[in-house]
Amino acid sequence: MSLATRPNAPARGYAKGRARREAIVREASAQFAEKGFASATILDIAAACDISRAGLLHYFADKEALLEAVLEARDAEDRARFTPYARASGSIGVLRGMVELAEHNQLVPGLIELFVRLSTEAASPDHPAHEYFQLRYARIRRTTAQALAAAVADGHLSADLDPATAALRLTSLMDGLQLRWLLDRSIDMAGAIRGTLTEWMTEPGRRAFEAAVPSDR
Amino acid sequence: MSLATRPNAPARGYAKGRARREAIVREASAQFAEKGFASATILDIAAACDISRAGLLHYFADKEALLEAVLEARDAEDRARFTPYARASGSIGVLRGMVELAEHNQLVPGLIELFVRLSTEAASPDHPAHEYFQLRYARIRRTTAQALAAAVADGHLSADLDPATAALRLTSLMDGLQLRWLLDRSIDMAGAIRGTLTEWMTEPGRRAFEAAVPSDR
Repeated sequence: MSLATRPNAPARGYAKGRARREAIVREASAQFAEKGFASATILDIAAACDISRAGLLHYFADKEALLEAVLEARDAEDRARFTPYARASGSIGVLRGMVELAEHNQLVPGLIELFVRLSTEAASPDHPAHEYFQLRYARIRRTTAQALAAAVADGHLSADLDPATAALRLTSLMDGLQLRWLLDRSIDMAGAIRGTLTEWMTEPGRRAFEAAVPSDR
Repeated sequence: MSLATRPNAPARGYAKGRARREAIVREASAQFAEKGFASATILDIAAACDISRAGLLHYFADKEALLEAVLEARDAEDRARFTPYARASGSIGVLRGMVELAEHNQLVPGLIELFVRLSTEAASPDHPAHEYFQLRYARIRRTTAQALAAAVADGHLSADLDPATAALRLTSLMDGLQLRWLLDRSIDMAGAIRGTLTEWMTEPGRRAFEAAVPSDR
């Protein structure tokens, strides 16, 4: 049955709206990454999506709302990279997912640049993404600490490891690697994260880490 | 003997020029940190130093040359923080100096912000500081690897540690901590670096690290 003959008109309108919303977020993400947040304009983004400025503003009230959607989409994509490993391999799978995420990041330099640049600019309390980045860092540090604590409890990481301070070090390492990688693409981000995690692992943890695979769905 | 009665007139002129040069660099550093490199102007920096625009251009050909001098002054200051520890305590003293440097960095948020912002902007190949930051990162990574290798050779760090990859991780951690610290000043940068170094240390290394003191001069 083609979309046109489906009986459920409201659901179809919703799906169409969602698809357009996602297309705008993809385009905004590309333009923010290419030109920087300050230089990108609603008008250019709308034009690239083949809609009017008013049409775009129907979905996003302003450029700040669009930025928030771009950041949330990226975070959701990142989470989707962890989930299959966590589902198949538990706490050690989450750590394996972190390394896979770093591998993936090496494929999307524009997005990395956008994130690093924005989190630097967002240090100013009057930047539209200031609170977003503060909350984001706090959340990532908290969930990373939980993941490390679970891996310690499962005997995969050394019992000496303090999850809270190790989480700060691990997440800061990821950010710092991205900053340097922008200047030197030969840097092995995934290898550096793997090296740090491996140092923290017990012998059984190392074996489980190497054996971790993503679930099928 | 006062400066005025010193017989060596050219040396006196040289000292005066050097003092003025240093004052300009200090002022430029403050203004770049406060306004960002793009918004700061030669005119404002000259005015704050009580000299004319032409007077400033006598010392620095353009804003890029001034930026380079600011960056070099910062690096020289950083090195000065290591030297007394290295002189008194050898290879473990250098590691102690790294922690002390992180402590010091927590006192100069404007400079940290300038450095993080510039190194992000400098990812673009057409940025005036692009090559400077590439060379700077390569140099810091190389000297850090040398410092770690010396500490391994002295038995202070585990023989399992690979100095080259550990140097990438340590220097990236420092950068990432600065990025996060700009958004959350409660982060303990020095503690995180100390934690990483301590994990790598042997038992004798830990004792030597705690006992390390700077030399008197």
